[in-house]
Amino acid sequence: MIVIMADNATEEDIQGVVKRLEAAGLRAHLSRGVEKTIIGLIGDKVRLGGFAIEALPGVEEVIPILQPYKMASRSFRAERTVVPVGEDLVIGSEKIHVMAGPCAVESREQLLYTAEKVRAAGATILRGGAFKPRSSPYAFQGLGEQGLNILAEARERFGLKIVTEVMDIRTLPIVTAYTDIIQIGTRNMQNFDLLKEIGQVNKPVLLKRGLSATIEEWLMAAEYILSGGNSDVILCERGIRSFETYTRNTLDLSAVPIVKHLSHLPVVVDPSHGIGRWKFVAPMCRAAVAAGADGLLVEVHPNPAEALCDGAQSLTPENFEIMMGDLRRIAAALGRNI
Amino acid sequence: MIVIMADNATEEDIQGVVKRLEAAGLRAHLSRGVEKTIIGLIGDKVRLGGFAIEALPGVEEVIPILQPYKMASRSFRAERTVVPVGEDLVIGSEKIHVMAGPCAVESREQLLYTAEKVRAAGATILRGGAFKPRSSPYAFQGLGEQGLNILAEARERFGLKIVTEVMDIRTLPIVTAYTDIIQIGTRNMQNFDLLKEIGQVNKPVLLKRGLSATIEEWLMAAEYILSGGNSDVILCERGIRSFETYTRNTLDLSAVPIVKHLSHLPVVVDPSHGIGRWKFVAPMCRAAVAAGADGLLVEVHPNPAEALCDGAQSLTPENFEIMMGDLRRIAAALGRNI
Amino acid sequence: MIVIMADNATEEDIQGVVKRLEAAGLRAHLSRGVEKTIIGLIGDKVRLGGFAIEALPGVEEVIPILQPYKMASRSFRAERTVVPVGEDLVIGSEKIHVMAGPCAVESREQLLYTAEKVRAAGATILRGGAFKPRSSPYAFQGLGEQGLNILAEARERFGLKIVTEVMDIRTLPIVTAYTDIIQIGTRNMQNFDLLKEIGQVNKPVLLKRGLSATIEEWLMAAEYILSGGNSDVILCERGIRSFETYTRNTLDLSAVPIVKHLSHLPVVVDPSHGIGRWKFVAPMCRAAVAAGADGLLVEVHPNPAEALCDGAQSLTPENFEIMMGDLRRIAAALGRNI
Amino acid sequence: MIVIMADNATEEDIQGVVKRLEAAGLRAHLSRGVEKTIIGLIGDKVRLGGFAIEALPGVEEVIPILQPYKMASRSFRAERTVVPVGEDLVIGSEKIHVMAGPCAVESREQLLYTAEKVRAAGATILRGGAFKPRSSPYAFQGLGEQGLNILAEARERFGLKIVTEVMDIRTLPIVTAYTDIIQIGTRNMQNFDLLKEIGQVNKPVLLKRGLSATIEEWLMAAEYILSGGNSDVILCERGIRSFETYTRNTLDLSAVPIVKHLSHLPVVVDPSHGIGRWKFVAPMCRAAVAAGADGLLVEVHPNPAEALCDGAQSLTPENFEIMMGDLRRIAAALGRNI
Repeated sequence: MIVIMADNATEEDIQGVVKRLEAAGLRAHLSRGVEKTIIGLIGDKVRLGGFAIEALPGVEEVIPILQPYKMASRSFRAERTVVPVGEDLVIGSEKIHVMAGPCAVESREQLLYTAEKVRAAGATILRGGAFKPRSSPYAFQGLGEQGLNILAEARERFGLKIVTEVMDIRTLPIVTAYTDIIQIGTRNMQNFDLLKEIGQVNKPVLLKRGLSATIEEWLMAAEYILSGGNSDVILCERGIRSFETYTRNTLDLSAVPIVKHLSHLPVVVDPSHGIGRWKFVAPMCRAAVAAGADGLLVEVHPNPAEALCDGAQSLTPENFEIMMGDLRRIAAALGRNI
Repeated sequence: MIVIMADNATEEDIQGVVKRLEAAGLRAHLSRGVEKTIIGLIGDKVRLGGFAIEALPGVEEVIPILQPYKMASRSFRAERTVVPVGEDLVIGSEKIHVMAGPCAVESREQLLYTAEKVRAAGATILRGGAFKPRSSPYAFQGLGEQGLNILAEARERFGLKIVTEVMDIRTLPIVTAYTDIIQIGTRNMQNFDLLKEIGQVNKPVLLKRGLSATIEEWLMAAEYILSGGNSDVILCERGIRSFETYTRNTLDLSAVPIVKHLSHLPVVVDPSHGIGRWKFVAPMCRAAVAAGADGLLVEVHPNPAEALCDGAQSLTPENFEIMMGDLRRIAAALGRNI
Repeated sequence: MIVIMADNATEEDIQGVVKRLEAAGLRAHLSRGVEKTIIGLIGDKVRLGGFAIEALPGVEEVIPILQPYKMASRSFRAERTVVPVGEDLVIGSEKIHVMAGPCAVESREQLLYTAEKVRAAGATILRGGAFKPRSSPYAFQGLGEQGLNILAEARERFGLKIVTEVMDIRTLPIVTAYTDIIQIGTRNMQNFDLLKEIGQVNKPVLLKRGLSATIEEWLMAAEYILSGGNSDVILCERGIRSFETYTRNTLDLSAVPIVKHLSHLPVVVDPSHGIGRWKFVAPMCRAAVAAGADGLLVEVHPNPAEALCDGAQSLTPENFEIMMGDLRRIAAALGRNI
Repeated sequence: MIVIMADNATEEDIQGVVKRLEAAGLRAHLSRGVEKTIIGLIGDKVRLGGFAIEALPGVEEVIPILQPYKMASRSFRAERTVVPVGEDLVIGSEKIHVMAGPCAVESREQLLYTAEKVRAAGATILRGGAFKPRSSPYAFQGLGEQGLNILAEARERFGLKIVTEVMDIRTLPIVTAYTDIIQIGTRNMQNFDLLKEIGQVNKPVLLKRGLSATIEEWLMAAEYILSGGNSDVILCERGIRSFETYTRNTLDLSAVPIVKHLSHLPVVVDPSHGIGRWKFVAPMCRAAVAAGADGLLVEVHPNPAEALCDGAQSLTPENFEIMMGDLRRIAAALGRNI
C-alpha cells in the first residue's frame, strides 16, 4: 500500500500517518520527493482492518499494491487448477468442453431432443435452467424441481454432465443433489451469502462474471467460494455492460488470457449472453477458443422462435453442428481438442 | 412492439411473422415502406409469452414500445406515492428527509454518539449496517443481530427512524422486526427471490439502483416488490459504473427527474457511495436536493479514519452539520424543507 | 512512480530496473515486502522520456504518482483563475454566468429573437453554432461566416458576449475575429493540433469534456492550451458516455467539485447535451448551480420543434425564464448570484 | 421512424404530429393501441431536415427505423468491398494482411530493423507513426516528414506497403504523398472536417473506431468519407472504453462479425491498443482472426523498454514471429491464409 500525501500536507500530517501505521505493527517507508511525499507500507495489511487511511489529515490518495485475492491468485497456487466434473471429465486440460442446451428447460421433449442433438455434435455437458432469474416478474420463471428431474433424465440417457443455475439458498440443496456443476448467474456474483454457502458444498461451481464486475471483483467472488473450502471453481466470461447498444453486452474476450495470467482457475466463455444475437454467436465461439478458453457455454434450442426465454440468442441444432466443426479445427491448430 | 424486417426478407417471411402474431390473438399492422417493411403489433403482448419474434426468418430487429413495468409506472398511478414510515413521518412530500449514520454499526458508543449528532443537525432517519455486503471475504461483515439491537436503542433514545440492509432471505424476518425501512443494496437489486419475499412484507423498502442497472431495470426490480403486494417502495440513486476512475462511481443525478417522470415512486440519493470521497459529498448532496430528490442517504462517522468500513467517504458530524445548513437554504429556495 | 515487480522476478530483474532508472539520473528506492518487491522513483520523471518500464523483464505493473498535468493543477497555481471575457465580464467569480441560445444559428430572425429573450431573462452570453459538427454528413452543417455575422449583430444590439465553436484550424482566424469565447467541442477535445493553435490565440476558450474523457485527460487537454501560452481556459462538463440509454449522455456533476479540487480553472456545465431531453434540463441546471458551477450553457430555441439541430433538448424562452428564477434563488442560498 | 405518443396526449396533439409530417410530404400511419398511440412514418425522412418531432406537444419518444448510413450499408452494396492497396495487394479477400511495426518512427535504424523482421515473419504492411497524437503536450510528438521519409525507404527496401496516421488537414497532402494507406486515429474519428477532406483523396483509408463510438457512429464516420467520393475505407476495431481498468481499453471483437453484417467494408483489428499489455496481444490476435477479421494492426518494437511510445504494448520481433505461426494455422483452419 502506498500513501500519497497532499501537496499541502504538514509535517504533523505526515507523522500522523506514520504513527498510525506503526501502531498497527506495520513498517512505514517515507519518501520525500521533489513534488510529493509518499509513504510505503510493509507488512501484513490485514492488521489494518478496515482502517481508512484516506480519512487521515493530509492524505491525498491511497494506492493498493497487493491483489486483494489470495487463494484465487497464481502466487497462492502456481500450477493450473483442473476441475473434475464427475469421474470421467475434467475442465482446464487440453480438451475444451462445450456446454450446450436451452436457456430454460421448457418440457421433457424439448430437453431430450436438444440433448441428443448437442451430444451428437460433440457437446459433453448439457446446460438448461430450472430456476430462472428474469428481469420481469411476469416472465417465465422456470420449471423448478421438475426441470431438474428432466435434466437428470437427459444425463442418464445421453451420458452428458449437467450444469444448471442456483439462485437462492433455499433451493441450493436440491440443485446440488441433481446437478454436476452449480452455476452462479451474473446477477448473483456478489450475492455473498449464497457464495459462502456454496463454499461449503462439494460440487464444482461455474461462476459467471457480474454485469459490471471488474476482473478483480470477479476473482474476489471466487475467493469467497475458495476460502469457504470449495476449490472447484470455473470462471465464466459472459459479457459486460458498455455504451454499445447493438449487442446485449460487450463480450470481453481479453478476460480469458488475463484471468489465466492472474489466477490458476480455468475460464470458459458464454457468447450467447455476451452478444444476445444468434448470428454472431458462432464467430465469437471461434474467437473464444482461439483466445484460450477452457470451455464454452452455448444456447441451443430446437425452435428458437418458440423458446420461452432467450430465443433471439439461441442456435438451432443444425447451426450448432456446423459451428462445432470450425471449433474443432481451431482447437487442433492450437494443440487442443474439443 | 414493432418488428423490422430484413432487407432481404421474402413475402413468405413477412406472412410468417403476421401469422405467428395473429395465432397469439394479436393484430398485426403491415407497413411497406420504400426501404423497409415493418410490422406493428396491437394488443396485449403478454399473450406472446417469451416468444422470440427475433428468431423468425427474415426478422432484422424487434423494438418494444410499451414500458415493461406496469405498477411502477405513472400510467398505473398518476398521483405521487407518499411512503409512510412509522406513524409520524412520510417520504415523498415537501419535506426532504435526511438519513444519516455510519456505514456499519461498529459499537454501541459509536452508534449512539453518531445518532445524537445527526439528530441534532436535523436528520430524521438513522442509517447503519448490521449485515454488510463486502467484496472481500476477509473484511468486517457486520455485527448482525447485535447491531440491530443497538439501532433499536438509538431509535428509542433519539426519536429517529432506522433504515438498515437485508442481504439474505434467512435474516429477513429479524431485520423486518427491528427496522423501519428495509434497505436492498445495489448488489441485490436483481436478487429476484429476495425481492419476491420483500413484496410480501409490510414495511417500506429502500431499493438501491444496481451498479450497472438502467433506469428501466431498476423500475422492473421495483415492479417485483409492488406486484408482490408491497406498495411502499422508495428508490435510491447511488451512482453507476462508468469509465471514470477518480470517483468510486458516477452519481447519475439525472435519474432523479427521470424517475419522477416515469414513475410515481419517491426517489432519494446516496452521494456517499456515488462519489466515494467525503470531500465531494456535500456539493453532491446540495445538487441532489436541487435536482428534486425526496431524501438523502449520507454516511457520517465520528472518526472516519478509524471506521471499519467506508471511512473514506464518511463525513464527520461537524461537516455534516455545516452541510445541513446549506441544504436547508436550497430546499427553502425551491419551496421545500428539511 | 512506483514499479511493482512480479512475484517471479529475479534479483537480476530487480537490479535491471534499478540500473535503468539510475541511468536516467533518477533515484530508485527499493522496498522488499513479504509478498512484493516495489521500487519507488524519485526525481523528475520527464527525464525518462516515453521509456516503458513496464516492458522491462520482471515488471508486473507501473503506477504513476504525479498528476501528468502541471499548469492546470492547483500545485502550479493555488488561487482560482478568473477568466476575463471582454472588458466587463469575468468567469470564475461569485457571479454565475448563463450562456444561452440555439444549438445552431439558423437565421437572423431566429437568433435576434432568441438573443432578446435570453437577455431579458438574465443570460449574459449568447451561444449559437456557425460551424456545426454533425454525426451525419447529410445533416445541416451550419451557416459558416454568415452565422458569425448574425452573432456579432446580436452582440451589438443586446449587449451580450458570444461563444461559438471552432472545428477546424482553417476557420480559427475568422472565428477568433468574431467571438468572445472560442468553444472547443467534445469531439475535438483531443484534436491536439487544434489545441496547440488555440494555445497561441489571445481569446478565452471553453473546453468541453470529451465523450469518454476521464477528468485527467480533460485537464491534459487544457494543459495543451495553457502550455501554448493561453491561460484563459474555462472547462465545460457536458455529459459522458455510460450504459444508460434513456438519456443521451450521463451528466457527471461530480466533475464540478472534483475539477475545482484538482485545478484552478473555472468550470461550467452544459445540461442540454448531457441529458438530451428538454424536460430534464431545468432540474439539472439547478443541480449544477448547487454543485458549484461557475456558469451554465443552455440551449434555447423559439420553436424547438422546427429547430435544425438539437430541438429535442432545447428550452423555449418561456421555460428558460421560469428556470432562471429558480437558479437565482439557489445561487443566493449559496452566497452567489446570477 | 415511429413516433410514440405520451399517455396523456390529446387528440389535438396527435393530429398536430400527423399534420406536421404530412406537411413535409410524408405519409403517417396512425395506430391506436389499447395502451399507446403510435404514428409510423413512410417516405423519405430526409425531407424532414433536422425537424425535431420529439419537441412537438404530446410526443413521448421517437424511434428511428432506418439506419442513418446509406453508402456504408449492405443495402447500398451487397457484395463485399475489396480495397486495393497499391497494385499488388488487396484488403478484404481470403488473405488476411498483418500490418506491423513500431508505434512511432523513432530512427532510421529502429524502423529498418523492425521492417526487416516483420517482413520476414510474414507481415505485408509496415505501420509507424510520423505524426503522433499524444495525451500529454510534453510527450514525443513524432518525427514528422523525416519519419515519412524513413517509412518510404523501408517500403523500398523490403517490398512492404506502409500505413501511417494523419492528424491535421495541413499535413494531409504530405502524408498522402508518402503513404499507401492513410490512418485516421481514434481521436479523429469524428473530426468531420478532416473526414471530408479525406473523402476527396485517392488513397485507401484505415478508419479507427472512436474511444467511445457506437458501431453506428463509426459507420457514419465512414459515410463522411464514402459520400465525399473515396470508397476505399477499411474499418479498424481498436478497443472501446469500459469500466474495466486492468486493460487500457476493452477490445470489442464482436464488432468484427457485426460490421460485416451491417456493412460491405472490410474490417481489421488492432489488439495492441485494445489491450495495452503485450502479454495479451497474441491471444487477442488469434481471437481476431478466428472472429473473421480481414487484417491485423500490431505494434512491434526491437526493444520495447526503450520505445518512445507505447512500449508496454509492443511485441518483440521474436514474439511476433511465434505468434504469426499460430495465426497461420488458425487462418488455414477457416479457409483463409496469412
